[in-house]
Amino acid sequence: MKHKIKALTIVLFTIGSIVFTACNTKNQEKMKTENNESIFPKGEKLPSDWFTGNAFLSPLVSQDKNNNFSAGAVTFEPNARTVWHTHPKGQVLLVIEGAGLYQEKGKTAQFIKKGDVVNIPENTEHWHGATAATKMVHIAITNFKDERQVTWLQPVSDEDFAEANKTASE
Amino acid sequence: MKHKIKALTIVLFTIGSIVFTACNTKNQEKMKTENNESIFPKGEKLPSDWFTGNAFLSPLVSQDKNNNFSAGAVTFEPNARTVWHTHPKGQVLLVIEGAGLYQEKGKTAQFIKKGDVVNIPENTEHWHGATAATKMVHIAITNFKDERQVTWLQPVSDEDFAEANKTASE
Repeated sequence: MKHKIKALTIVLFTIGSIVFTACNTKNQEKMKTENNESIFPKGEKLPSDWFTGNAFLSPLVSQDKNNNFSAGAVTFEPNARTVWHTHPKGQVLLVIEGAGLYQEKGKTAQFIKKGDVVNIPENTEHWHGATAATKMVHIAITNFKDERQVTWLQPVSDEDFAEANKTASE
Repeated sequence: MKHKIKALTIVLFTIGSIVFTACNTKNQEKMKTENNESIFPKGEKLPSDWFTGNAFLSPLVSQDKNNNFSAGAVTFEPNARTVWHTHPKGQVLLVIEGAGLYQEKGKTAQFIKKGDVVNIPENTEHWHGATAATKMVHIAITNFKDERQVTWLQPVSDEDFAEANKTASE
């Protein structure tokens, strides 16, 4: 009789543990899916002349008679970043997912994360992108001046990117 | 002896059920918290002259020498909406959370949801807001013309709001 009770206890405890673990795993996967669903589609891969690593653009608004800007959602996978560049009439970044970096020439890089806003001045050499470890998605609102939006410059070297990751301020 | 096995089975089954239910509840609450964390702060309640119900504004970008627009994140709790209004130089809505409604004068209302973009023409009477059942958050990019952004008109009546909820197209 004692054996039967012991066996039953073990069986039921095992069933309980399996159920507990299974329900935790299922919920974690469900949470992961729900939390990983980005707001906008990822869009098309951006050209490597202007974007190092895997960066994607989902266009949202084109320049028109009212909107003297274009806007898009840009996804940077870890390590991806723009090359150095300037905007003749500035640009606004609204970070909507993840965490990344923003750096102006001659200044320390800054960490930027979900909820941050960066108002980039005109004609200021800068770059932005993911960190080495984290993905980042931002909406970019880029103003036009005489039909131009951007002047692309040289890539951000791996050394400078590593330095930015190491020394960026919050 | 049979009684002991029966009692033990009941006890262990009860414990298993409690654990299962508890872990489901805990995970649902955790998911609710993580999924409900909005990107931008909710901000301040908007005036009832121009917004029916509970609507809030988190300003993101002010008009400046480069940005001929202001941008903000607007949260509409269920039932909340703008009054009817026009923009002299249009407005862009980027829906970043939830689901709501957009309606132009004389047209059927449209459901708008996370990931949608609405490019509102100039001088077009319209309103936007939550549905009766769901919250909605959008970024609004509102252009200036001669220092003006908006002309506020009359509220959306409860009858018209109910009608919009009932007849809106996807």
